[in-house]
Amino acid sequence: MTKIFNDPADFAGDMLSGFARAFPGFVQRVPGGVVRATQAAPGKVAVVVGGGSGHYPAFAGWVGPGLADAAVVGYVFSSPSTQQVVAVATAADAGAGVVLSYGNYAGDVLNFEAARAQLTDAGIPVRSVVVSDDLASAPRDERSLRRGTAGDLVVVKIAGAAAEAGYDLEGVVRVAERTNAATVSLGIAFEGPTPPGSRGPLFTVRDGRMGVGLGIHGEPGVSEEPLLGARELAGLLVGRVLAERPDGARRATVLLNGMGATKYEELFVLWNEVVPALEAEGVEIVEPEVGELITSLDMAGLSLTITWLDDELEALWGAPAQSPAYRKGPAEAAPLTPRPVPEIAERAIPEASEASRHVAKLVHAAFETAAAALAEAEPELGELDSVAGNGDHGRVMARGARAAATAAGRAVEAGAGTATTLLFAADAWSDRAGGSSGALWGAGLRAAARVLSDTDPPANAVQAACRSALDAVTAYGNARVGDKTVVDAFLPFTESLEADLAAELPLGPAWVNASAVAARAAEATASLSPRLGRARPLAARSLGHRDPGAVSFAVVVTAIAEHVA
Amino acid sequence: MTKIFNDPADFAGDMLSGFARAFPGFVQRVPGGVVRATQAAPGKVAVVVGGGSGHYPAFAGWVGPGLADAAVVGYVFSSPSTQQVVAVATAADAGAGVVLSYGNYAGDVLNFEAARAQLTDAGIPVRSVVVSDDLASAPRDERSLRRGTAGDLVVVKIAGAAAEAGYDLEGVVRVAERTNAATVSLGIAFEGPTPPGSRGPLFTVRDGRMGVGLGIHGEPGVSEEPLLGARELAGLLVGRVLAERPDGARRATVLLNGMGATKYEELFVLWNEVVPALEAEGVEIVEPEVGELITSLDMAGLSLTITWLDDELEALWGAPAQSPAYRKGPAEAAPLTPRPVPEIAERAIPEASEASRHVAKLVHAAFETAAAALAEAEPELGELDSVAGNGDHGRVMARGARAAATAAGRAVEAGAGTATTLLFAADAWSDRAGGSSGALWGAGLRAAARVLSDTDPPANAVQAACRSALDAVTAYGNARVGDKTVVDAFLPFTESLEADLAAELPLGPAWVNASAVAARAAEATASLSPRLGRARPLAARSLGHRDPGAVSFAVVVTAIAEHVA
Repeated sequence: MTKIFNDPADFAGDMLSGFARAFPGFVQRVPGGVVRATQAAPGKVAVVVGGGSGHYPAFAGWVGPGLADAAVVGYVFSSPSTQQVVAVATAADAGAGVVLSYGNYAGDVLNFEAARAQLTDAGIPVRSVVVSDDLASAPRDERSLRRGTAGDLVVVKIAGAAAEAGYDLEGVVRVAERTNAATVSLGIAFEGPTPPGSRGPLFTVRDGRMGVGLGIHGEPGVSEEPLLGARELAGLLVGRVLAERPDGARRATVLLNGMGATKYEELFVLWNEVVPALEAEGVEIVEPEVGELITSLDMAGLSLTITWLDDELEALWGAPAQSPAYRKGPAEAAPLTPRPVPEIAERAIPEASEASRHVAKLVHAAFETAAAALAEAEPELGELDSVAGNGDHGRVMARGARAAATAAGRAVEAGAGTATTLLFAADAWSDRAGGSSGALWGAGLRAAARVLSDTDPPANAVQAACRSALDAVTAYGNARVGDKTVVDAFLPFTESLEADLAAELPLGPAWVNASAVAARAAEATASLSPRLGRARPLAARSLGHRDPGAVSFAVVVTAIAEHVA
Repeated sequence: MTKIFNDPADFAGDMLSGFARAFPGFVQRVPGGVVRATQAAPGKVAVVVGGGSGHYPAFAGWVGPGLADAAVVGYVFSSPSTQQVVAVATAADAGAGVVLSYGNYAGDVLNFEAARAQLTDAGIPVRSVVVSDDLASAPRDERSLRRGTAGDLVVVKIAGAAAEAGYDLEGVVRVAERTNAATVSLGIAFEGPTPPGSRGPLFTVRDGRMGVGLGIHGEPGVSEEPLLGARELAGLLVGRVLAERPDGARRATVLLNGMGATKYEELFVLWNEVVPALEAEGVEIVEPEVGELITSLDMAGLSLTITWLDDELEALWGAPAQSPAYRKGPAEAAPLTPRPVPEIAERAIPEASEASRHVAKLVHAAFETAAAALAEAEPELGELDSVAGNGDHGRVMARGARAAATAAGRAVEAGAGTATTLLFAADAWSDRAGGSSGALWGAGLRAAARVLSDTDPPANAVQAACRSALDAVTAYGNARVGDKTVVDAFLPFTESLEADLAAELPLGPAWVNASAVAARAAEATASLSPRLGRARPLAARSLGHRDPGAVSFAVVVTAIAEHVA
């Protein structure tokens, strides 16, 4: 159980400050995460890792020579925001482009991909490598649906070594993708983690049982089996990871990873059984790692990872690396040259018309109302989310809306018009909320702002903004109606609004009608048959429960009806 | 909760094999522990660390260039046996003598000191450095009563660097003792560990509370206080460790250590508060460490350690070191020269008389009976021991007696006389049992053997052997009647036996009488007022409970009455 914190809401930020204070020779803080404290070679490709916090040594513990150049650090078990990724990658870029490497989770994919698009627009060449090593989360022929777990370390190590060796952007991507394809992992869970401020673990496993196929965000195993002794457990793990052995593969590196509360001595007892089990199958083990490599706070469990090596991958795996939590081979006495970090410019506030400034005030008032409504709904939303997620939807939504309201207020104070006020709110929402809902709301609000203006409000502004936001959310989330996402409420809301306005109903009553449609649609998600979306295998579990994203959408649109007319 | 093991009794051995398999570049297994896999410089002082297992990275994780030369590894939370220490130190010695460095716990002190005497007799110069940094376990003016906790790492690091730099035996001891004197620690506990095979944690702390002044073997805190936020907790820890700041001391290294289930992120949150709290008091922090340095299986808790540095200690603290779990500075690409390990000779079996061989058979039968009786009493003894100890007394006694009986049987098979049979049993008992009771029973049986013979049984052999054993146990344990130890039963037993035999009662009835006296004395330990012995502050807690050592003594002497007549 996580016991040490000030305000649980500040946990990730406090953690990151303390981490940077503990390892000043390796890292320095930047907005959104950490970058190396030391200069990399000019023209070196930058490897940027990241994800939610709670997984130390992943990801910030891997920043240093021979490994990553920077880490983006989100809230506990939440994806970092798009802005965080942009800020950290911009600071890490040394002119030769950036590889973003992260695990295959919906929120991470959304935010890192959105950041990739923004960075590319800004002229920085960026490629993504999405790690998908967890064999329990999807069958072998649907590799792209698999989650990322401890395979993250092997991919980052090999990408980092390639970048250090002078590979260009495409070259680093090529070996990193080959590494991911050659890597499979299987995890075992005994008890879930207890995030800061929670009263109990995210899941428990009955005495004498174990969960097989854990996730690293407190997701329980995909099946439950009787607890095994060390020898039999080694047999199960080795058998499952070798089932996907490529033809003729012999040499491999192997990771035996503890999730937090399953300790070193237990890992060594298991390793003592894993080695003969692998050797009996003719596997030659190359520079293995046994220890805590990617954790899930104080979760009890472990995972076994195998990466099949060819000569190139083996040389890169064996190359020296120095970071706070992972060190290999001889360290060069690197001079501690402080690495200069570019400032990130604040968004400017353009001139605005009187009319647009007036609407901006209404927008600010609407965000204040939405923030209050979401704060009230926070416990219910959290409960809904704990069925298939990690229970933080209420907290994330309340935090995002609160940040958006504050940012909108500051913009209005500074004389911003409607579009700019909405942009400030959008940035603040996704940046402070994090996670996948933060990314979706940020993307939706930004898309709405794009069809508005700071001068003359366009005709049909409201329905145009709604449709633009819906399109952005649908595209980002790759979701269709029936997937049990926010789209299940957002699409019927928009259609109702458009129909009423086309029938010349005034905006006020049209909005009220549409809100009622959204609320009914959110209720109906309890009976929807879910479709298995990309990297969302857990969504299938929430059948019979209302989708928290659809419910929170209905909460917002219902609350702000008073400001719309 | 420890979940991964085969037979819990084999946990430490399986763990050590797996550890050696994970780090073949650093360590090789020897009987009793591990020594470096690589050659040290000829004429280098050997630094040997050790203690029970369950504390990884302590102690085996610290074997490598710049740190320790070898580690002695006992059972979980039990001191290694005297024989283990002798075997490992003999393998580690490179001709310039050995420094034994270990924490101040009764069992460790007994076994390492006995080993020191044996090694010195064998011509190896050996010095001990006993680490005593835990400020909660005794007041400042009774420093020698304090337990050893995370200060172990600082002492080993500085001793290892001094040895590597060519200091001689006295020189290494001098800096190691200065380091210990300059080091204080304070620990906080949230929940005890659950050793392999146990059904629950060794202690719990109520919700919203924390134990202050933890031990590393699952001893709870010495006081319980309300749980604090990170900032206030940092204030408490810093205030308490600075209370013993030497006049004028400014520069210090600082360790923030997690005990196992209190994770990295929490430690960084706390570190973020510890740094400003120390800096506000003018402390200059030199190369600190934040992480899991010395754990207690899956115990939840942490400790803060401060070591005040002068120029010499600071240079040694900063020197490079490479080991499985602790790496600092540039690593030399050390050639992997296998280090030859000397064989340890088996004890020879001298010629024996017919009469002595006959008595040896009775001794073997008595050990078999004792082993059976202790196996039956194991649960009760474990329960008694869990009041003030870690609950392993029953297991340790049953294991020791079983090993002694088997060894005695082998000796008898090979034609050994009484004294030699007893010596085999003594060695096997202390070697397989480990811990302080193993050391005491080994020492007592060895002392008994010394007054016996393999040829003619001396007059008054039984009472002479009893008195000799009692003297050895009393001397080793530094215990007096009333301390709630085995002596409380052993002394009245011996006095009763001597008095009856002096009054010419036959041995059979005299032994039965003495056994009854021992059993009553063991019962009476429940009402004894305990004296605070050296490094045994927790004994004070068992007031109102029978001492498990006294009870197990009574079990043995009562059971073997049939073989004595």
